[in-house]
Amino acid sequence: MSLPLISRIRFNSQGLVPAIAQQFDTKEVLMMAWMSAESIAETISTGRVCYYSRSRKGLWRKGESSGQVQYLVDIRLDCDADALLLLVEQSGVACHTGRRSCFYRALRYGDVVEIEAPEVDPEALYTRKSHAHSHG
Amino acid sequence: MSLPLISRIRFNSQGLVPAIAQQFDTKEVLMMAWMSAESIAETISTGRVCYYSRSRKGLWRKGESSGQVQYLVDIRLDCDADALLLLVEQSGVACHTGRRSCFYRALRYGDVVEIEAPEVDPEALYTRKSHAHSHG
Repeated sequence: MSLPLISRIRFNSQGLVPAIAQQFDTKEVLMMAWMSAESIAETISTGRVCYYSRSRKGLWRKGESSGQVQYLVDIRLDCDADALLLLVEQSGVACHTGRRSCFYRALRYGDVVEIEAPEVDPEALYTRKSHAHSHG
Repeated sequence: MSLPLISRIRFNSQGLVPAIAQQFDTKEVLMMAWMSAESIAETISTGRVCYYSRSRKGLWRKGESSGQVQYLVDIRLDCDADALLLLVEQSGVACHTGRRSCFYRALRYGDVVEIEAPEVDPEALYTRKSHAHSHG
């Protein structure tokens, strides 16, 4: 089912493609991360977004430790076939800092300022996560 | 003015950072491209988006040949400081195929299909561009 898509993607030399996650209804851009062919196949088959973690060098099932899962609504490929746009339903917050979006810093009057406050205490988030995970 | 932002960015080994362009009011994701420190500085100082073209290995002033300029409304940095979100006012279409967004292909019933038609004939676009350019 995912092969027709994956076979068209121009992955980089590390076998990865950048993926933008956008909340499907509000259209808020939540984050950008990387996907491998394997993570894309899993995402499409399960309906839950799975990235590739470059730091951990492995599959990163979004929300597996935090509970902040992303459900896939649609997956789109760009004209050059080297970027993906994921329309998702974000459960809770996307950012590990407890903010809805990872793009919470902006240039204002020549300086970088935070324009969005955390909705959730990151510590509570990850404590709750571990708890949720232990039951999952 | 742009130094406080640029100094915080974690550029990749090629000195580039991925940038997502989003129409500021409709929130449509238009495209993803790459920026260098120089292209970011120019974008902020001129208010017109300038990317770095990896194929041409140089500055790519969006719309310089097509007339489809992007005006910068806001520039945001993500939590890991390795991705940018540009809120822009897109003049005309963003995609070289004549479509508003580059993300016009989606997975439907197991196949990749085009879900958005061109608004402009790409040939006309680039003929007009060259014309516009010759007057610019």
